[in-house]
Amino acid sequence: MKLLSDCIFCKIVRREIPAQLVYEDDQVVAFRDINPVAPTHILIIPREHIASVAEATPDHQGLLGQLLLAAPKIAEKMGLEKDNFRIVINTGADAGQTVFHLHIHLLAGRALAWPPG
Amino acid sequence: MKLLSDCIFCKIVRREIPAQLVYEDDQVVAFRDINPVAPTHILIIPREHIASVAEATPDHQGLLGQLLLAAPKIAEKMGLEKDNFRIVINTGADAGQTVFHLHIHLLAGRALAWPPG
Repeated sequence: MKLLSDCIFCKIVRREIPAQLVYEDDQVVAFRDINPVAPTHILIIPREHIASVAEATPDHQGLLGQLLLAAPKIAEKMGLEKDNFRIVINTGADAGQTVFHLHIHLLAGRALAWPPG
Repeated sequence: MKLLSDCIFCKIVRREIPAQLVYEDDQVVAFRDINPVAPTHILIIPREHIASVAEATPDHQGLLGQLLLAAPKIAEKMGLEKDNFRIVINTGADAGQTVFHLHIHLLAGRALAWPPG
């Protein structure tokens, strides 16, 4: 499993820096965004360092599915309505990606406007 | 494979109503959103009828991964920068879901603001 020594999300996976973890399994870790834009704003990341969706390969197909399946589990675990949340994944700086370790934003707890950015 | 007779996206999968298809494979179909909110706005859907991410089961893990892996393929095929796009998945009416057949919004071609709705 590839881990980058200077990646902030890899450091969270390795518990080298603190985060408010809300969920984890064999391949996935989820924690609260430090700059939330909704009452519930969780980041769901793979333990493995993958820079973005564009860098994922067919070998990651199962892992990507596991990341998406974690979203309703987390919503339910946090006492949210399991079926009222938005998932956002930014790929590249123009799309708003700031940390280049693939992460899913899970947003819930308020009505979400359209367009999404 | 479950197909609902009155679902608009199932009808697109079955070619019963027209859509501007941009990609398809054994499990996935992608087409232009009829109400685009970005220069490129594509909907990526499973052929199988799944109402939302919240209704997906562990059996759908591979399919969900295939949906995400389609996004950079589509971006590249359309001549976009493969690594500058936003993915949005709405689950539930409060999050903005209007068609209850799971779909990924692929947005590209302009800078995307934050928060995402």
